[in-house]
Amino acid sequence: MPRPHFSPVLLTDLYELTMLQAYFEERMRDVAVFSLFVRRLPERRNYLLACGVDDVLAFLETLRFDEAALAYLDSLGRFSTRFLHYLADLRFTGEVYAVPEGTPVFAEEPLVEIEAPISEAQLVEAFVMNQIHLQTVLASKAARVVGAARGRQVVDFGLRRMHGTDAALKAARAFHIAGVHATSNVAAGQAYGLRVAGTLAHSYVQAHDDEHEAFRAFARLYPDTVLLVDTYDTLAGVRKVVDLARELGPRFRVSAVRLDSGDLGTLAFGARRILDDAGLRSVGIFASGGLNEDEIARLVAAGAPIDGFGVGTDMGVSRDAPSLDIAYKLVEYAGRGRMKLSTGKVLLPGRKQIFRVERDGIADHDVLGRRDEPPCGRALLQHVMAGGTRRPEGRVTLNEARAHAKTELDRLPAQLRDLAPATPPYRVDLSATLMQDRDALRRQHDREGTHR
Amino acid sequence: MPRPHFSPVLLTDLYELTMLQAYFEERMRDVAVFSLFVRRLPERRNYLLACGVDDVLAFLETLRFDEAALAYLDSLGRFSTRFLHYLADLRFTGEVYAVPEGTPVFAEEPLVEIEAPISEAQLVEAFVMNQIHLQTVLASKAARVVGAARGRQVVDFGLRRMHGTDAALKAARAFHIAGVHATSNVAAGQAYGLRVAGTLAHSYVQAHDDEHEAFRAFARLYPDTVLLVDTYDTLAGVRKVVDLARELGPRFRVSAVRLDSGDLGTLAFGARRILDDAGLRSVGIFASGGLNEDEIARLVAAGAPIDGFGVGTDMGVSRDAPSLDIAYKLVEYAGRGRMKLSTGKVLLPGRKQIFRVERDGIADHDVLGRRDEPPCGRALLQHVMAGGTRRPEGRVTLNEARAHAKTELDRLPAQLRDLAPATPPYRVDLSATLMQDRDALRRQHDREGTHR
Repeated sequence: MPRPHFSPVLLTDLYELTMLQAYFEERMRDVAVFSLFVRRLPERRNYLLACGVDDVLAFLETLRFDEAALAYLDSLGRFSTRFLHYLADLRFTGEVYAVPEGTPVFAEEPLVEIEAPISEAQLVEAFVMNQIHLQTVLASKAARVVGAARGRQVVDFGLRRMHGTDAALKAARAFHIAGVHATSNVAAGQAYGLRVAGTLAHSYVQAHDDEHEAFRAFARLYPDTVLLVDTYDTLAGVRKVVDLARELGPRFRVSAVRLDSGDLGTLAFGARRILDDAGLRSVGIFASGGLNEDEIARLVAAGAPIDGFGVGTDMGVSRDAPSLDIAYKLVEYAGRGRMKLSTGKVLLPGRKQIFRVERDGIADHDVLGRRDEPPCGRALLQHVMAGGTRRPEGRVTLNEARAHAKTELDRLPAQLRDLAPATPPYRVDLSATLMQDRDALRRQHDREGTHR
Repeated sequence: MPRPHFSPVLLTDLYELTMLQAYFEERMRDVAVFSLFVRRLPERRNYLLACGVDDVLAFLETLRFDEAALAYLDSLGRFSTRFLHYLADLRFTGEVYAVPEGTPVFAEEPLVEIEAPISEAQLVEAFVMNQIHLQTVLASKAARVVGAARGRQVVDFGLRRMHGTDAALKAARAFHIAGVHATSNVAAGQAYGLRVAGTLAHSYVQAHDDEHEAFRAFARLYPDTVLLVDTYDTLAGVRKVVDLARELGPRFRVSAVRLDSGDLGTLAFGARRILDDAGLRSVGIFASGGLNEDEIARLVAAGAPIDGFGVGTDMGVSRDAPSLDIAYKLVEYAGRGRMKLSTGKVLLPGRKQIFRVERDGIADHDVLGRRDEPPCGRALLQHVMAGGTRRPEGRVTLNEARAHAKTELDRLPAQLRDLAPATPPYRVDLSATLMQDRDALRRQHDREGTHR
């Protein structure tokens, strides 16, 4: 959207810029390490599916203060000319470590670690969090929906009720990684090359004086279309599809009917019987309307003859968990581990690695350790950007990420993939080395009287 | 963001385009009226604050299929060259009626009605819904938060956990209309001229070896700053602010301390006492960290000495009601009222108007009627766009919308502005004329056997 105009680099909180000017004035230029993690999982999530790092890397690669950004900051009257000149030359020159998109992660585990001169790593906090948060929220929700559908296709219908246009695009992307089959969002198809899907709405049927005439006209133009049958009376609508089949004979190629309201299970059984009785076994049944993973699981468990699901709002806003307790915290500065001790929010210091310990190809538990300690399992964080430039590990196609997610999800213990909370939850240990670092730093804080 | 590339006009569901091609082939070019409304209010909303129409009008004014959009559609292999030529020339030429941004509305009431040749009105469905939904969700939530703060300033801290960048920008806009004082989002400041706010984060304190040194350095650069005091121990942090005041003497101008964790009420009382005992009565207390309208109301009711609130995630994703049951429905085509009858979703046909009936300046109830019937109260829907061009009623500044919201909220019955569900809820009647239209259309459907 050309309007309103904003400079991407200003997708930041004002305090980042006031801090940057302070770092500039104090000549604080050492390398900082920031760790992005989720403090705890939502009640209805047994894992999170990490997503969004590609957008973070694209942002970091192109980060710069354009003329409009500098002029706007100047107008605020808080920033010196010297500092604005410094911003004009600022680029992101740091290192990024990240788990590949589509990797299941757990509480306290870093999804991303950024190491860069403190100003660069500080400035990007809000954007990095915003994108990883959004896409991880949505991919994690979609993985549940796709799992509940047990191989039936899931199509994203969420554009109209997602939170804005960026969310709608990034959702389609995250959903693809999580295994969603297609999206109704044409812009997302254009932007990402995703499969797009869609046929007709109630308004098309209503705009015709007669439902049968609407079906006939639509099938003439799109012979293998899906026909929406619930504008007036669902089963009567299905019978009109049967009428159309009789009328068209061998030219009839309608692929499915869509149910969008009412008791979808009962209606699906009814529709299936009508279609089968008419010899239309090849006509599938597609269901939509207020669906989420619980409702889909219920329909699947009841054996409802539904071949695919259109899922909108509930997946599109992740209604049961629209946000995560995500944090982006300074864990090291100038080579020294940093921690924060305020109530209930104790930080783990230093550069970290996640080790996934597997038995017979299935994840048993994770160990959160220091990045430089000997691996006790498969290391998940990869070095995706060096000196501000992507490394090969940072160039992953959407389809590769989707395949990765499938592989990784298949390696989770089965009960984590259930919709119900896993008891006990997946185990994440701290390595002995990391615990030592944490305790040493805490003792040092106590000694230095930072608590005074 | 330059990447990924998409054409704004393609922020639409694929089925809109397949329907458009069908309308094109069937030469269906009559005027359609679509009505956008919310079927029912979320449990924790006594009203909704309508918002987002300015973005809708901007979209309609500039709607066109650019070369990239046409090339992408061509690549899908579903659209004829003739139809793509037609799309290349398509513009929005219709009428828009809308309630002004910042108007409280209720279930079933149209926030927007669009009248245009059916293709134009159909095409824009998803974008219109997406923007009105998002901004109405967020403005409605923010109005509760602002109300709970009882005149204390509320600052938007939500950028990092809102759903994407568009949501973060539109939220700052919607929050401003709802009475929020400022935003931390610099891009929103740039885009909309909103007041921006922000000082320092925990990472700044952590990056210094000592909290006191961090405060001193920051206050040197920003003498009237707010200092964040909870990095290690909150009340110890407040005492360091007192130390700084002694050190600086008359040069001390710190305006407030910020508490961001722990029991904010207890800590605010403790901090106030420490500051007052040191003669620092002019230093205010600003609170943030997991706040929402309930927590703010609790703090205010307890008399906690807090002068302002920073509110992030809960307001930013409207956690208790992240979506609305919003609909955009065909209510008239070719001069004839249309309705949809599928289970539980009966539509009101035709062009409508909302009449707000007031007694002594306070809203008593609304009447939903036909647009052309004699007003029985203040008519809320305004003619904001004619022939695809904004009318003066469609040009409202953000500050005008904010003032309008304040006036309109002041005219609501007090109990609607409470956080608890109003019992009974606000009354919305149907006019006798509208009921006649609905019943006549239903009888006609029955007669014509659409139910068969």
